[in-house]
Amino acid sequence: MLTEKVLHMNTGIGESSYATNSHLQGTGVKRSLPVLNEAINRIAKDLNGFLGCFKIADLGCSSGPNTLFLVTKIIERVHNICSESNSQVPQFQVFLNDLFENDFNTVFKSLPAFYTNVKEEKGDECGPCFVSAAPGSFYDRLFPDESIHLFHSSYAVHWLSRVPQGLENNKHNIYMAKTSPTNVFEAYKKQFKKDFTKFLQLRSHEMITCGRMILTIPGRSIPDPSSDDCCIIWELLAKSLVDMVKEGMVQESKINEFNIPYYTPYEDEVKDVIQKEGSFSLQSLDGFPLDWEPYNYTDTMNTDDVSGLPKLGVNTAKLIRAVIEPMMVTRFGSSIMEMVFKKFEERVVDHLTTKKGVNYNLIISLVKR
Amino acid sequence: MLTEKVLHMNTGIGESSYATNSHLQGTGVKRSLPVLNEAINRIAKDLNGFLGCFKIADLGCSSGPNTLFLVTKIIERVHNICSESNSQVPQFQVFLNDLFENDFNTVFKSLPAFYTNVKEEKGDECGPCFVSAAPGSFYDRLFPDESIHLFHSSYAVHWLSRVPQGLENNKHNIYMAKTSPTNVFEAYKKQFKKDFTKFLQLRSHEMITCGRMILTIPGRSIPDPSSDDCCIIWELLAKSLVDMVKEGMVQESKINEFNIPYYTPYEDEVKDVIQKEGSFSLQSLDGFPLDWEPYNYTDTMNTDDVSGLPKLGVNTAKLIRAVIEPMMVTRFGSSIMEMVFKKFEERVVDHLTTKKGVNYNLIISLVKR
Repeated sequence: MLTEKVLHMNTGIGESSYATNSHLQGTGVKRSLPVLNEAINRIAKDLNGFLGCFKIADLGCSSGPNTLFLVTKIIERVHNICSESNSQVPQFQVFLNDLFENDFNTVFKSLPAFYTNVKEEKGDECGPCFVSAAPGSFYDRLFPDESIHLFHSSYAVHWLSRVPQGLENNKHNIYMAKTSPTNVFEAYKKQFKKDFTKFLQLRSHEMITCGRMILTIPGRSIPDPSSDDCCIIWELLAKSLVDMVKEGMVQESKINEFNIPYYTPYEDEVKDVIQKEGSFSLQSLDGFPLDWEPYNYTDTMNTDDVSGLPKLGVNTAKLIRAVIEPMMVTRFGSSIMEMVFKKFEERVVDHLTTKKGVNYNLIISLVKR
Repeated sequence: MLTEKVLHMNTGIGESSYATNSHLQGTGVKRSLPVLNEAINRIAKDLNGFLGCFKIADLGCSSGPNTLFLVTKIIERVHNICSESNSQVPQFQVFLNDLFENDFNTVFKSLPAFYTNVKEEKGDECGPCFVSAAPGSFYDRLFPDESIHLFHSSYAVHWLSRVPQGLENNKHNIYMAKTSPTNVFEAYKKQFKKDFTKFLQLRSHEMITCGRMILTIPGRSIPDPSSDDCCIIWELLAKSLVDMVKEGMVQESKINEFNIPYYTPYEDEVKDVIQKEGSFSLQSLDGFPLDWEPYNYTDTMNTDDVSGLPKLGVNTAKLIRAVIEPMMVTRFGSSIMEMVFKKFEERVVDHLTTKKGVNYNLIISLVKR
């Protein structure tokens, strides 16, 4: 399976699209704002303000309401710093990056409204702001040498460049799971270390000295790689696929050969790679838990109330489907998708009757040495 | 009618797409190569070679085989100059520009093959080359100050920012035509002067000093604005629409209110705007005629042979449909498109029985003062 060809979110703006089902990621993005603002403050200090054109890249931008949200916030912060110091607001050049198969057309159609908003809110003295797309894998070079001031990436760098090698014995699983043999955990960890090291190397070439990078990814607060924090979602999805085997709808070998190119690192693993690679200093690393369904969970139910569970099941299934469907279709075909995600929805509800659905997330703030 | 919203070529790669029906533009692009190469030679001379990253922008790139053809040729020329002078080949940053509604997704899907080709042909010491998209109107700012070395635009700058005002009396026409009242010619000319002046102003801010710009557009070798050289295609299309009125398929008022935002300038009008705007020196202005159907015309028939005419009619109709259909659908609806272009095809064949189908084209080479 060529990861670059199938690793993209569900396109468009329809019911099963990533654009419609990315509010969990949106909540995570909002949580990263204080760290992002602090990074911008530090850039302003280190560079003595913003001269000429401030260049920003968003890696793994996907397509949806989150894509331009952070750009707006970055402009806002720079604008405020310039107002406070009575200095000229710079021009902005923003590069949105994602893989070649990403739905950039939908992002571009939202740009006229974005530009109008920036102009209305910040006035003519701000910018102008130029948004462009730089498609390609962030495991390859994307930008000219020393051309970017600020890299940002939200829920993207946990996607590996490829499925790790040597997972043949990860039977009935599609990711690290409680029943995975030890070599599976090792293979995933090894691939993450290799990929994240390369990612840092490449970005360090593309970034100006004192440039900053903020990464938000799902991860782990504990060393155990099969922790519920990060793996239970994929265990439930694997079980839904195994249910389909029992009904004769899916070949067992297809599940055994399917593993997702994804890794939720333990905090210390991240720190370790950053230190060994050596191009960046770690400014901060913050972890926080996030409910699977952050909007509805607290609004509609308390922990003893199960009436909201079916809705939570539906929403969580939509969220995961928007992320993983293109990859699953490549392996299992599109005809069984409805049924797999129906089963998954039931398994999610079942899980939530006894446990809370929570992911752990990391916000990593780096500065180029 | 909001021009920016509807002015785009037919998307995708299907039978009626621009990608499949842009060989006439492709022939024009090839004709501009010597002028382009000369411009690159001069940049190398003026800037003492290529240092750091060579930045190129293609304005109105559309989507299809022509989009990346010129990028390949530019890289080739720079590569040759560097080989001859034994100097390091620079990195390349290429910005593909078109309106927000353009089909960039299709362009991006062709990038992996493009990168592989560049690497195979030029080797690892070339580049890397970073292709990105900068969507937006070239009648607005697109790039930061003084950031582009070479602008290129092929069959785009003749599209106006809007339909000229005061065309209410241009009855039964959709562009300047032999039966157009004088004020129509004046209104089109005025809009072109205004738009082209603004275009030059904007680009001069975005270009480094001694940067160059090559524009290829359809135009006129003679002052007469209703010359067959540039207008007959649209007269034949207007007549096809009038045929539809007679059959009760189209309201007459809809044709009278429809005028295309397009202008084919006389050579001296172009020179005049460049001189008055003042940011650029005109390096050269070359004109050349181009058959409507450059591939088939000379291959399959001589001027007395009419057996190839039906095929010419089909191909010319496809070519024009790929360019103008989205705009026509907005005004007339999609249901009549098949029939309009069938009638147009017949009118093209009829025209070609007595006259040759030829457009006149201009290649304009500019250097920033």
